Amino acid sequence: MNEFGLISKYFAPLAQNFEGALGLKDDAAIISPKSGYDLVITKDAIVENVHFLKSDSAFDIAIKLMGVNLSDIAAMGATPLAYLIALTLPDNTADAWFAEFANGIKSMIDEFGGALIGGDTTSHNGPLTLSLTAIGQVPSGKALKRSGAMVGDIIFVSGTIGDSYLGLQILQGTLQSESQHLTERYRRPNPCIRLGAKLHGIATACIDISDGLVADLGHICSNSNVGATINIDSIPVSDDAKAIIAAHPDMINNMITGGDDYELLFTCPAPYEKAVSTLAKKLGLPLTKIGVVTSGNNVKVTNNNDTEIVINNGGYQHF
Amino acid sequence: MNEFGLISKYFAPLAQNFEGALGLKDDAAIISPKSGYDLVITKDAIVENVHFLKSDSAFDIAIKLMGVNLSDIAAMGATPLAYLIALTLPDNTADAWFAEFANGIKSMIDEFGGALIGGDTTSHNGPLTLSLTAIGQVPSGKALKRSGAMVGDIIFVSGTIGDSYLGLQILQGTLQSESQHLTERYRRPNPCIRLGAKLHGIATACIDISDGLVADLGHICSNSNVGATINIDSIPVSDDAKAIIAAHPDMINNMITGGDDYELLFTCPAPYEKAVSTLAKKLGLPLTKIGVVTSGNNVKVTNNNDTEIVINNGGYQHF
Repeated sequence: MNEFGLISKYFAPLAQNFEGALGLKDDAAIISPKSGYDLVITKDAIVENVHFLKSDSAFDIAIKLMGVNLSDIAAMGATPLAYLIALTLPDNTADAWFAEFANGIKSMIDEFGGALIGGDTTSHNGPLTLSLTAIGQVPSGKALKRSGAMVGDIIFVSGTIGDSYLGLQILQGTLQSESQHLTERYRRPNPCIRLGAKLHGIATACIDISDGLVADLGHICSNSNVGATINIDSIPVSDDAKAIIAAHPDMINNMITGGDDYELLFTCPAPYEKAVSTLAKKLGLPLTKIGVVTSGNNVKVTNNNDTEIVINNGGYQHF
Repeated sequence: MNEFGLISKYFAPLAQNFEGALGLKDDAAIISPKSGYDLVITKDAIVENVHFLKSDSAFDIAIKLMGVNLSDIAAMGATPLAYLIALTLPDNTADAWFAEFANGIKSMIDEFGGALIGGDTTSHNGPLTLSLTAIGQVPSGKALKRSGAMVGDIIFVSGTIGDSYLGLQILQGTLQSESQHLTERYRRPNPCIRLGAKLHGIATACIDISDGLVADLGHICSNSNVGATINIDSIPVSDDAKAIIAAHPDMINNMITGGDDYELLFTCPAPYEKAVSTLAKKLGLPLTKIGVVTSGNNVKVTNNNDTEIVINNGGYQHF
């Protein structure tokens, strides 16, 4: 099928609820912003054998592409509005690939909202490369940032940490485990959209964990001009991860630097601790206190014995 | 240099005039839309050896990436506001490449406005792949579309057609010419931002020519549910192109289907012909009448003798 046929068959249906998408048939899409709202906008690319495995299905690749970008929208406390996708595919990609990919995008739109409003499809003789632009809306002036943490604030993290790191080790064959939960967590990030939208008035700073908990906490610290101390024994881990840590006690060090968790890490004033615990119950999502914001500009990791743990790997970086 | 170093050294300076870019240090950028304006948003990818040559400089690649996207913003009659860039580069790309690439982006921002507000940089072992998301603003409800052409409207095109097609043939060695003008037109698209912004109240439909004049006129026709007749002898061509046509009379057929012109093709009611000619003088830019909108749904190409010319190639498509 040609480029225009692919767009009209697989992608235009994902645009039908957004008038300004113009059926994906025009040069650009039109967004008529809602009065009293800011837009937040992010763009992340994912590449075969770097961010996902060559063996991953088109459906899972779509989930990952949407998930990593929606996670940024969540971290700003915004609600998804629209997406643009650029696909650069190997020559002769089968129509079935597009059908499955579009199904993955649709499943994320069904769950988190928003519509496809544009993009581009090109072919080359290299690895599959995808980028997504995600646009969210947030009440004017209310976007959560990395820069508001204050000395004395409590540090919270959502969900469990390290599952995705362990899942990747299993998929790459460097760790033996039958856990589907862990590999699923690597393949299908679950962005914290509902949580982010409830953190207005609670969080002083917020970030999603993509580079690794320690590195991303470092980003909050450098943008807020503060330090932080976290207790490694308080890091929330899943039951499947606990089983692995029992056999490999040092694994927790890799789990807090490994990245791809797509949980939210946020700070809030100490008096709001109860509000966070109420929110956790309401959302049915663990929100765990893991440390405090300090003066200085370093992230310090201790344990239950108050011994400092030296962490070597500061998080994933390209180049 | 690592990823964060590259961003702060080469890209953050391009974000400094846009508060919501947050110094490129946060999860997403914030746009506070101006009351009374819509946003238009587009995203095109370019790939080595498909849209540009491996030998092209990082500066020229940046010009092309910005140019093809700004051309879509121009076609909607919008003014540039912001950009997000995703770069997927070969491993070990030198710092000098980034410096030169950022200079190219800066030169386009200096000329056309807007600011860099986000993006992503990843590495892989494949061809250089880049995508840009461009955002423009336009008075609410005034964006130009492909869908408004009416039977009897005049069809105009800006600048000259076919230079970029000829430039590519020269660079690929299939055409002998010393013309720098033609190769420059392939390497450095010059988006019609000033023209697009002046077409409100004049144009009934507008598109930028990327797939080829005939194919893009076909897009206006299908979106507007009309047909069109153009006179091939009225197509504006540059002096350098004229010299080539003198030796290869059939070349004009390829030039109107070759694409990459990044001129604007627009329709307007016949009584506005004089307003278009006044605008051309004001902008110092040729705006040439090449045909009329008809009933039906085909693009018909004739010549000065009213003989129909059969055009085989309907424009560039991927897949």
